[in-house]
Amino acid sequence: MSNQFFEGREKLWNRRELLKLGLVGAGMTGTAALWRMFDSQKQSRVRIPPIEANNADKAELVNPMKVLRDFDYGTVKQENGRSVREFHITVGTSTIQLNSAVTFNSWNFNGRIPGPTLRVKQGDRVRVFFLNKGGHSHSMHFHGFHKSEMDGVRPIRNNSATVYEFDAEPYGVHLYHCHIEPVNRHIGKGLYGMFIIDPPKPRPPADEMVLVMAGYDVNEDNRNEFYAFNGLPRYYMNNPIRIYQNQLVRLYVLNMIELDPAATFHVHANMFSVYPTGMTLTPSHQTDVITMGTAERHILELTYRNLGKYMFHPHQDIFAQNGCMGQFEVVS
Amino acid sequence: MSNQFFEGREKLWNRRELLKLGLVGAGMTGTAALWRMFDSQKQSRVRIPPIEANNADKAELVNPMKVLRDFDYGTVKQENGRSVREFHITVGTSTIQLNSAVTFNSWNFNGRIPGPTLRVKQGDRVRVFFLNKGGHSHSMHFHGFHKSEMDGVRPIRNNSATVYEFDAEPYGVHLYHCHIEPVNRHIGKGLYGMFIIDPPKPRPPADEMVLVMAGYDVNEDNRNEFYAFNGLPRYYMNNPIRIYQNQLVRLYVLNMIELDPAATFHVHANMFSVYPTGMTLTPSHQTDVITMGTAERHILELTYRNLGKYMFHPHQDIFAQNGCMGQFEVVS
Amino acid sequence: MSNQFFEGREKLWNRRELLKLGLVGAGMTGTAALWRMFDSQKQSRVRIPPIEANNADKAELVNPMKVLRDFDYGTVKQENGRSVREFHITVGTSTIQLNSAVTFNSWNFNGRIPGPTLRVKQGDRVRVFFLNKGGHSHSMHFHGFHKSEMDGVRPIRNNSATVYEFDAEPYGVHLYHCHIEPVNRHIGKGLYGMFIIDPPKPRPPADEMVLVMAGYDVNEDNRNEFYAFNGLPRYYMNNPIRIYQNQLVRLYVLNMIELDPAATFHVHANMFSVYPTGMTLTPSHQTDVITMGTAERHILELTYRNLGKYMFHPHQDIFAQNGCMGQFEVVS
Repeated sequence: MSNQFFEGREKLWNRRELLKLGLVGAGMTGTAALWRMFDSQKQSRVRIPPIEANNADKAELVNPMKVLRDFDYGTVKQENGRSVREFHITVGTSTIQLNSAVTFNSWNFNGRIPGPTLRVKQGDRVRVFFLNKGGHSHSMHFHGFHKSEMDGVRPIRNNSATVYEFDAEPYGVHLYHCHIEPVNRHIGKGLYGMFIIDPPKPRPPADEMVLVMAGYDVNEDNRNEFYAFNGLPRYYMNNPIRIYQNQLVRLYVLNMIELDPAATFHVHANMFSVYPTGMTLTPSHQTDVITMGTAERHILELTYRNLGKYMFHPHQDIFAQNGCMGQFEVVS
Repeated sequence: MSNQFFEGREKLWNRRELLKLGLVGAGMTGTAALWRMFDSQKQSRVRIPPIEANNADKAELVNPMKVLRDFDYGTVKQENGRSVREFHITVGTSTIQLNSAVTFNSWNFNGRIPGPTLRVKQGDRVRVFFLNKGGHSHSMHFHGFHKSEMDGVRPIRNNSATVYEFDAEPYGVHLYHCHIEPVNRHIGKGLYGMFIIDPPKPRPPADEMVLVMAGYDVNEDNRNEFYAFNGLPRYYMNNPIRIYQNQLVRLYVLNMIELDPAATFHVHANMFSVYPTGMTLTPSHQTDVITMGTAERHILELTYRNLGKYMFHPHQDIFAQNGCMGQFEVVS
Repeated sequence: MSNQFFEGREKLWNRRELLKLGLVGAGMTGTAALWRMFDSQKQSRVRIPPIEANNADKAELVNPMKVLRDFDYGTVKQENGRSVREFHITVGTSTIQLNSAVTFNSWNFNGRIPGPTLRVKQGDRVRVFFLNKGGHSHSMHFHGFHKSEMDGVRPIRNNSATVYEFDAEPYGVHLYHCHIEPVNRHIGKGLYGMFIIDPPKPRPPADEMVLVMAGYDVNEDNRNEFYAFNGLPRYYMNNPIRIYQNQLVRLYVLNMIELDPAATFHVHANMFSVYPTGMTLTPSHQTDVITMGTAERHILELTYRNLGKYMFHPHQDIFAQNGCMGQFEVVS
């Protein structure tokens, strides 16, 4: 694919899509809302405990409770007899509050950390309209199959755009992130998100949620001072994730911590079934502590039988103490 | 379970159990000795090489040779037609000698580092009488299934006690540790131990032993200066573990190293079969180097065919050089 | 095996083998060339893209393009009805250029970093003539089965020699390295290499290559400043590895990075099948990011369907940015 081609599409898209992008930047498009509804129908047997209003309604840049069960199915079109899912991603900057004393100048996709959880079915055509308003060169590199031209390692300059397009395969839990050097800095600043490709036959109904572990190097000494699930340190510790007793919970877990080579994920008082990289339909084994290097991700399934609160955290306890700490609250 | 209830039990237990606890603190109770005998009967086909007297008889706080094959089966009672195993755990403090020049002010369970290896059968009721004489708030958090109230994250004040009670499941190699923040410090000071739940049908006879890797941050700079198997740096290097040629060895290995995100376990001149988290009865694969994040643990089985000495250590060689180093001595 | 015996063999070998060793030190023996030819016949269906002349012909100490597909099958002899493969290894020193500004005083096996990839078939007798010209005591410790006397933990003094001899088993991707304390320093200086034991029935034809990840602590602060695949930082980034479209690629990947506890291996735009420690003939799972602690190694198989360049690197991106970074170039 020549640069010529890209230049053309970028200009076309800049003209045609800017208004739509504006909408996306502000919130959820009508089409996405439609697909979300479809998703909740598909999983009609799954019940989600009510989220307290002060969490659900908040429009902050980083709202882990909103991130948790928010899947972006894109806008679906039929082209030549197949489904094309279109997504709109804009890189921006924002300052987030890690705790009452510490702010962090972040870079982000669609004003969120992590970026939107893009979700498609295996075989779908995926088309991502990418606009860089981030002040530096950025890009969007997807894990999964695609051609070299769509690999997202080419810098997209500030105020420029591009389109990434590929067939969604193979099914699994994947990720996307900015691939501009120094990559550890671009990821550390917030430019990452989850990319789920569903298998042709959907997985069994479950209360599905996304947990992305990440680190914050606030003083730029190449060490992380803070850690978080879904963007904010200790958020789910203070705002437990409510889940129903005896209902299957499907966690899509990604370790996006740079600067520390590995983290474990641990749940209290339970075991989970592991689907490595989400690329299997049957679990490989069960445990309650799993080691994940940077960019590793898995589907972990578990069910709580007893009511009450149960922590989850990396068992490198210094990561947990510095923010990568949460709780499930099992309700009846 | 209300605090009221707990308060009542704690007082009751303080009165009734203190004398017994005193015995436990000093050594092994008669009942434990009985169960140990039972255990050696069960594995009558397994032979254990004699331990040199100066190791076996020592009553130091940290004696890795004593820790190695010492399983605490508790005191068994029958209640309502099922087995209840009662354990008595006291948190204390002691100063241990890491080498000829370095002492370390440790916190420990029952005067040992690691704490006693608690061992039960799947389905047993487990009842742990926990007394904190450690000078700070502490607790005992078990991995495995249990109710929220029994999760051991509630601080038990100094000179207070509590009872943890739950059904032992699922079978596997698990662990317990203090869960008071900062957890990495409470673990680093010595408050951890192994918790083995045997499957309903026992595993085949083998020379079973426990190896817990841990780190010591002696200058409190959030880095480990020393590492050890079963509490003492380089102990098994100077005092090799004698094992019989051609006899199955079953290692229960736990990585309890905080401050370093992962460690490998490696044996020389051999391969081991891996039973992930001990939660399977058939091995998942074979290797001679396995990566374990903090709190990961496995059953590793191996047999040495040739006589002589063979090292085992993490292959992060700086951990090995700083104390996490041992040797098997294969005898005929 | 008494020291007496070893002394005798060392002297014998010093007299008899020195000339031959000289040849080995200078390049590839005629016999090795013969076996290499045999190897390329065995895999006649596999095509290797031409290497640019300026890479293939270079005789530098560290030439990652030469290391990549270079398997040393040794010299084969028949003794008492079985195959014996003899290898000659000399420890030496050399200064390598990590980039235009940084040199590094290395220790190495046969003037290469990594050392030669020794390759045998399961059941072969392996005989390694080891000569230490490295200025310090060194040794050669193999992973895999062998007797205690052949474990390579005994220091071989400078200007001394020894013979390591054992039966090659079990099949898999293994390694050898110097085991003189401090081991992390001896490995960090370059004293490591891959040791492949092929299964009795050969694996299917594939474009086979070796990728060893390692770190360089150039200022001796116990941290790595540079990282590399096959010895040179960023080499394969500037000199992509050319592979054929739709042809199976079999990677023998070893993590030899000391001082960082774990690294992942990641390929762009593809997934690989994992054969843990190369000790299986069927893959355990598929992914595109795998965590490997120091000394872990696997066979990873993959096929690129599309032309173009695709990066591979650890996803601890700071390792990648500091040199552990390469590219495949898929050609038709």
